[in-house]
Amino acid sequence: MVDIQNQTDDREIPLQKVGVKGLSYPVHVLDRANRTQTTSAKVDLYVNLPKNFKGTHMSRFIEVFHKYHSNLSMNRFLLMLEEIRQNLDAAESFGTLAFPFFLEKKAPVSGQSGMMVYDCKYEGSVRAISDGKVKSDFFVSVSVPVTTLCPCSKAISEKGAHNQRGVVTVKVENKSFFWIEDIITLVENAASSAVYSILKREDEKFVTEHAYDNPRFVEDIVREVYIGLCNFATGENAQSEKPFSWFSVEAESFESIHNHNAFAYTEFSE
Amino acid sequence: MVDIQNQTDDREIPLQKVGVKGLSYPVHVLDRANRTQTTSAKVDLYVNLPKNFKGTHMSRFIEVFHKYHSNLSMNRFLLMLEEIRQNLDAAESFGTLAFPFFLEKKAPVSGQSGMMVYDCKYEGSVRAISDGKVKSDFFVSVSVPVTTLCPCSKAISEKGAHNQRGVVTVKVENKSFFWIEDIITLVENAASSAVYSILKREDEKFVTEHAYDNPRFVEDIVREVYIGLCNFATGENAQSEKPFSWFSVEAESFESIHNHNAFAYTEFSE
Amino acid sequence: MVDIQNQTDDREIPLQKVGVKGLSYPVHVLDRANRTQTTSAKVDLYVNLPKNFKGTHMSRFIEVFHKYHSNLSMNRFLLMLEEIRQNLDAAESFGTLAFPFFLEKKAPVSGQSGMMVYDCKYEGSVRAISDGKVKSDFFVSVSVPVTTLCPCSKAISEKGAHNQRGVVTVKVENKSFFWIEDIITLVENAASSAVYSILKREDEKFVTEHAYDNPRFVEDIVREVYIGLCNFATGENAQSEKPFSWFSVEAESFESIHNHNAFAYTEFSE
Amino acid sequence: MVDIQNQTDDREIPLQKVGVKGLSYPVHVLDRANRTQTTSAKVDLYVNLPKNFKGTHMSRFIEVFHKYHSNLSMNRFLLMLEEIRQNLDAAESFGTLAFPFFLEKKAPVSGQSGMMVYDCKYEGSVRAISDGKVKSDFFVSVSVPVTTLCPCSKAISEKGAHNQRGVVTVKVENKSFFWIEDIITLVENAASSAVYSILKREDEKFVTEHAYDNPRFVEDIVREVYIGLCNFATGENAQSEKPFSWFSVEAESFESIHNHNAFAYTEFSE
Repeated sequence: MVDIQNQTDDREIPLQKVGVKGLSYPVHVLDRANRTQTTSAKVDLYVNLPKNFKGTHMSRFIEVFHKYHSNLSMNRFLLMLEEIRQNLDAAESFGTLAFPFFLEKKAPVSGQSGMMVYDCKYEGSVRAISDGKVKSDFFVSVSVPVTTLCPCSKAISEKGAHNQRGVVTVKVENKSFFWIEDIITLVENAASSAVYSILKREDEKFVTEHAYDNPRFVEDIVREVYIGLCNFATGENAQSEKPFSWFSVEAESFESIHNHNAFAYTEFSE
Repeated sequence: MVDIQNQTDDREIPLQKVGVKGLSYPVHVLDRANRTQTTSAKVDLYVNLPKNFKGTHMSRFIEVFHKYHSNLSMNRFLLMLEEIRQNLDAAESFGTLAFPFFLEKKAPVSGQSGMMVYDCKYEGSVRAISDGKVKSDFFVSVSVPVTTLCPCSKAISEKGAHNQRGVVTVKVENKSFFWIEDIITLVENAASSAVYSILKREDEKFVTEHAYDNPRFVEDIVREVYIGLCNFATGENAQSEKPFSWFSVEAESFESIHNHNAFAYTEFSE
Repeated sequence: MVDIQNQTDDREIPLQKVGVKGLSYPVHVLDRANRTQTTSAKVDLYVNLPKNFKGTHMSRFIEVFHKYHSNLSMNRFLLMLEEIRQNLDAAESFGTLAFPFFLEKKAPVSGQSGMMVYDCKYEGSVRAISDGKVKSDFFVSVSVPVTTLCPCSKAISEKGAHNQRGVVTVKVENKSFFWIEDIITLVENAASSAVYSILKREDEKFVTEHAYDNPRFVEDIVREVYIGLCNFATGENAQSEKPFSWFSVEAESFESIHNHNAFAYTEFSE
Repeated sequence: MVDIQNQTDDREIPLQKVGVKGLSYPVHVLDRANRTQTTSAKVDLYVNLPKNFKGTHMSRFIEVFHKYHSNLSMNRFLLMLEEIRQNLDAAESFGTLAFPFFLEKKAPVSGQSGMMVYDCKYEGSVRAISDGKVKSDFFVSVSVPVTTLCPCSKAISEKGAHNQRGVVTVKVENKSFFWIEDIITLVENAASSAVYSILKREDEKFVTEHAYDNPRFVEDIVREVYIGLCNFATGENAQSEKPFSWFSVEAESFESIHNHNAFAYTEFSE
């Protein structure tokens, strides 16, 4: 059968990314409490396409990904991208993997357990440099739902203070291993309060008063998380060098007094 | 050219709805302050298909709708459905029109103006009965963002109370004309507070304290709106009979202490 | 601590549904090939609220659900709803569980394996009748992506025929056990073609020609699936009575020549 | 009243963006056929926040935007961002405005008119440089739904070829005025076929055959649009210099034989 994709293209236009987008797949990722967890992911996979090729071979992305989906630790994700790069004879490969990450979490007073969900994303790329060597980039994003209580509202009001659910997203480029679980804890501690699946009345009293005692603008949360990430300690590396060479922090708060959101963002780079 | 859709089907299975879904169109709807407003709608249009026809003619739905889109008051929406029914030679036609409805709203103390958005939906159907007569059903839904402040959290906590954005959706079947604007006001008054686009500091103090003084479960809001709709007065009909023969009320609150929502729902029928 | 929810309400308005909405949870469901699979679900859980109670106790829904989430076969889902009903001292309980269901599927010629995703939903309710007895309703929905190729376009064109991805959703009320996998196969056979994760060139040739030889309107697919469900045989019950007392079928086709979709729907009831 | 936001912050962390996100507003934009059109927008507005300020004043973003919403040509959008920058005493301001853009479009044979929708976005920023001067960046994105017909499927199959709806998004940085309408036409001509709201049978025959005669990978469409944008002529500037100093093109095709999409992307820079 004719291989149209392999035909020569004379339009002289290289493409930066070609591939598959929006693939749904079950995946297994690392989990500190249970070693691994099974979850469901959305996957995008691309390579670059030199100007002289008409098209890429879309089925090969899935063939390679299928081999890796039952074991997708961060390291394995980059190995998978390198195998795609080689298989498609490309100079660069790119991939993202977005998935809900579930953790069991205890209520602060009653200790009752419920599951929480945190949206996570891997973003990576691998490119050939020279002598058969490759260079890779890798980022992990973690989105953590939190409570934000407005310092202005508290200061100017005789009673109460508006508060709301918000979501804080941390994206890191790591030099060494870290646990997603430790980023989640850091963010929850930087907010007015953590959120929970199950809260009995004694817990609800606790989180209400805790949030009132810890008012935070989105600006405050971004700054507190920034400081926390600069001093980040995780797992066995707790005493060694800091694991992140780059990170960003954003906080979005679903304002209870508006129909739009408050937003703050910043980045750190070594 | 052959008309495949018009061919006979011998599978003996009538279809309740066939048509077009997810059409995006600019529309003009009624607006008390400005007579009409232009907004953007998502449209679904269906007819029933008797068992002996193979298919419907999808282009005719859009042809008819196109003639009406620049004037879609509630009455005109039903006229449009009746024209679709006749044009497609069907016993029944169905339609929904979902659109953001914009209103200018003043902050409660400073009086500053900003635009608010309320998601609205028309749902209608027309069916032939006998002697060339038709019977129609028509429902309007209005979704109103509000602040909800938790009565339990307030009662058990020494300070503060968790609060959050919520959305209250009212769906009505009306016997006589009413203004969507009056439903919005009713719902905003039934919540812990209305929400606004622009709030200066004096406004923020006001809404914070007002919400703290008016704690409402989703259950409370549904009941308050229910009572309000039973006693509804609108426009020139303020003194006459009640305009609704059926309605439902639902409230969903984006809990600031959880990553899931609280929900309540009820219906009224004459 | 005061129990505000338990207080008496004198507004005389019973609520049909109160509870929690949009909860994200990992769940384990049945899977013919692997006995069970772990996936991620969105959960809504409600009870009715008599007119004399001010509010419901939201945390109890999650407490009960948490006990069941690691084993949610269809039977267990109803047991869970009954436990919620009793725990909240309600006459009725309601629940929905929506989840991606993953299956390994081989390409039609090359036989290469990839994972496919099918969006599924359980919807159930349990209500007390008399003498401590309860009555329950239960529905399962399965959404199956397919290829649809337009019979009209094929008939009137000298070459080619427009085709596109579509999704067929079957919802059934079952009297006896059935496998979701069998509904998926039925739907894929009723469409112009099944869709796949991995297709090599020989597979792409096969599905292209197969779709061209099997043109189907959304109307046709709904009728073919309807006939198939009337004659449905599944698992060990293949020879016994038909498992469904009610079902609906809808097909939505993301027309390649329009920016809106074609839609057809019908229902069957014993 | 105390102004918490104005208080000094000693954490030494400047923030790149703080502001409001997800604001819904009616807006008026330019339209070649009707001078202006009214549509509904989603708006994000930010400024940078120096390290010594605790917070920004969120209400001022909306106050300024409200003044401009009834006239938001591309030039006015940058004037609005500059007024926000000054009003908030910031070095930089940022904004995005996403809106559906509606155009009337005639079927290719019958000439029947229907409305089409194209998702558009403005993205701009303004920053102070020196001597009271400012520098601004501005990008416009236009998403155009199209038909894509697979060249490989056509070449290897004895009959038919898989085709599907796709969407092509062009993002440009412009040096001089251009019409969004001209980008839409360029993209529709580069695809296998344009899509339409209304197609009578003679039109359906035309687009089916036209697509079959013009097979295009997503890679082909990106390259054709790239060439078109390099030679772009628009409105009165048709004879003068090319209007774009930078652009990107991406094509995503909702494959009819898969449940995932094909994707291609590239950029041009002067």
